Amino acid sequence: MAEIAVMGLGTVGTGVVKVISENAGVITRKLGEPLRVKAILVRRFRDGPYRHLCTDHFEEIQNDPAIRVVIETIGGVDAAYDYTKRCLEAGKHVVTANKQLIAERGFELLELAREKNVKYLFEASVGGGIPILHPLRECLSANRIDEIYGILNGTTNYILTRMVRTGAFFSDALREAQRRGYAEADPTADVEGIDAGRKICVLGDLAFGHQIDPEAVPMEGISKLSLRDVKIANRAGYRIKLLGRTLRLGPENGFEAGSRTAYVAPHLIPETMPIANVEDVFNAIVIRGNAVGDVMFYGRGAGEMPTASACVADAMECLSTRESVLSWSPDTSGFENPLKLRCRHYFRIEGSLTDAAMAFGQVEVLSEDGETAFLTEPVTGLDARKRSANLNILSCLRVLS
Amino acid sequence: MAEIAVMGLGTVGTGVVKVISENAGVITRKLGEPLRVKAILVRRFRDGPYRHLCTDHFEEIQNDPAIRVVIETIGGVDAAYDYTKRCLEAGKHVVTANKQLIAERGFELLELAREKNVKYLFEASVGGGIPILHPLRECLSANRIDEIYGILNGTTNYILTRMVRTGAFFSDALREAQRRGYAEADPTADVEGIDAGRKICVLGDLAFGHQIDPEAVPMEGISKLSLRDVKIANRAGYRIKLLGRTLRLGPENGFEAGSRTAYVAPHLIPETMPIANVEDVFNAIVIRGNAVGDVMFYGRGAGEMPTASACVADAMECLSTRESVLSWSPDTSGFENPLKLRCRHYFRIEGSLTDAAMAFGQVEVLSEDGETAFLTEPVTGLDARKRSANLNILSCLRVLS
Repeated sequence: MAEIAVMGLGTVGTGVVKVISENAGVITRKLGEPLRVKAILVRRFRDGPYRHLCTDHFEEIQNDPAIRVVIETIGGVDAAYDYTKRCLEAGKHVVTANKQLIAERGFELLELAREKNVKYLFEASVGGGIPILHPLRECLSANRIDEIYGILNGTTNYILTRMVRTGAFFSDALREAQRRGYAEADPTADVEGIDAGRKICVLGDLAFGHQIDPEAVPMEGISKLSLRDVKIANRAGYRIKLLGRTLRLGPENGFEAGSRTAYVAPHLIPETMPIANVEDVFNAIVIRGNAVGDVMFYGRGAGEMPTASACVADAMECLSTRESVLSWSPDTSGFENPLKLRCRHYFRIEGSLTDAAMAFGQVEVLSEDGETAFLTEPVTGLDARKRSANLNILSCLRVLS
Repeated sequence: MAEIAVMGLGTVGTGVVKVISENAGVITRKLGEPLRVKAILVRRFRDGPYRHLCTDHFEEIQNDPAIRVVIETIGGVDAAYDYTKRCLEAGKHVVTANKQLIAERGFELLELAREKNVKYLFEASVGGGIPILHPLRECLSANRIDEIYGILNGTTNYILTRMVRTGAFFSDALREAQRRGYAEADPTADVEGIDAGRKICVLGDLAFGHQIDPEAVPMEGISKLSLRDVKIANRAGYRIKLLGRTLRLGPENGFEAGSRTAYVAPHLIPETMPIANVEDVFNAIVIRGNAVGDVMFYGRGAGEMPTASACVADAMECLSTRESVLSWSPDTSGFENPLKLRCRHYFRIEGSLTDAAMAFGQVEVLSEDGETAFLTEPVTGLDARKRSANLNILSCLRVLS
């Protein structure tokens, strides 16, 4: 049994407790032992399913030798910094999603972790549940990293998507984001690019090996963006997205070797680039390595469960004493025929829509001029075969949905 | 000094030697010691820059205790299997990009590696240089993986992209792919879905923990795909892509708990899904976790340098005796003002195109009705500010390119 503590019971903290409980089976199998939340640090007690685990005494966590990992989800710098330091000093691993703390004091806390021979991990601080910091450090370690840019803030991307799709003004789109819980009552950190700025600092720190002072990073948000620009850009084949961007600089572009820069600002992006089509609350981060070229990581950059799942994975990494086992069972039983899967099917037939309807009932017609193309309702592949046995099939394809 | 051997000197093998030489600085810094290719196993000697490293005696590699890692880039099963086994038995770590070998005999070789207390790593076997297997195993370890699907073969995606863009027939698009070196003289493994099939087996093996027998996986390629279907699908708002797909099955969808399936087939994909817009030789893989939702990994799935960079990163992981150091220097010097970066700028001004041209010379006009919007040639941010000082600026944005 591996025991951990969670500090803070907001969105991410609650998600951590949920992920550990809902995915207990998976986690136990991978970790080799069950993972248990022993204590949750809160400022105020509230009723709820985790009430019995809550404490408002940090020392109970700090002084409990059974607690090997602490997941900090307090946010901000003050208390989070103090408690993190004390946990590391007490020889506990610490995991966090706190980009502000990492961007401002990360190098110092990492140094302390190294001294104490414990880990301080923060995969969830950038891109929520999207794996990005581990791949950057490990999988891309044979590359010289030249540039990283990304849509790092889901709230602003949601607002921009609304402005493009519905022609909403910034202020109206912001209110809609707030109604849906995507933006906070005080949206400053999101819409002024500060949240994205902290994240691009963390990415730049790791990519280039030097602290990037968030104070030195120009951060421009989307609050001054006008609907007129969105429309002009769209018509000209561009999308406007708020990007954080950090680059390695060198003599090849007129700078001193080993220098770097970072900033946050809205950009026009040619619509043919994959990142131009990242919509709603989704995030996407592009890493440019000199050998691999551009790789992009895409997913939900925020939210209770995605962010929490990255924190729990980090906690598992802290606890894993053995090499993570890379293997699988040679037992092939349990493999099912994929024709048993249900999905919509596309058919093109030589024949009429009446033939199609006779075989499949209601269909969605895609084309008819001499030949007939249509989409079925969801059916299994076996069923699709059986029902179409008397049709003169020119082609049959699955539809992904 | 860490010494390794490379087996095979085709595309990937050559790339491995190049990456190690070109990125020697980065690699030494991260590994803590220089990495050196001591021997390259070839069947036939050819002139070239690596001639002095080549040998056709496998035993020279097998019996050299200084060689700690062997990167196998032979491909296929026969010799690759035999040599891999003997290297592992000799206590050497082995790294490979060989999806066929992993899909067919991976579990057996992993078991042997475990017995011998060495590593057998194969990040490059799926998605070339795109980090995918490590993130799946580590970053997403707190998730129950429900599904993985992806565009796993760059050759077929290139062919499909040509068919859509230029209305080329399959056979003509294939010939063009061959001319450009994207398709082999015998394109069967690519166009019939066999290559994608091996990769989806590897992904399914890792995701679900059971060997998926490639023989049991229905693999359908794109050779029978007609231009007519491509056009009908396009008009209806779908893109046709060749997908490998593997799913966890269970009682919730009418199967026994713990069962799974996998297949390769062309699919209609709604154009609004990000994977629908993955074009040319690019790959993209979507992993669906029960906590994180969908995450997508995108990049060049093949090619000399991308695939090689993943092999070298795996070799570095094998060699790394210490914990990979997660830290950066607190020294913030070398941070440059991002306004020194050159890029095209978008301006919207109150004024005429003459004003724009006076300030920036040649510009690309985007709109003019009362107000004026245009794109400049690439200039630094500082220069853009200076030149636009006398303009009546309504908005100014950077263009990403």
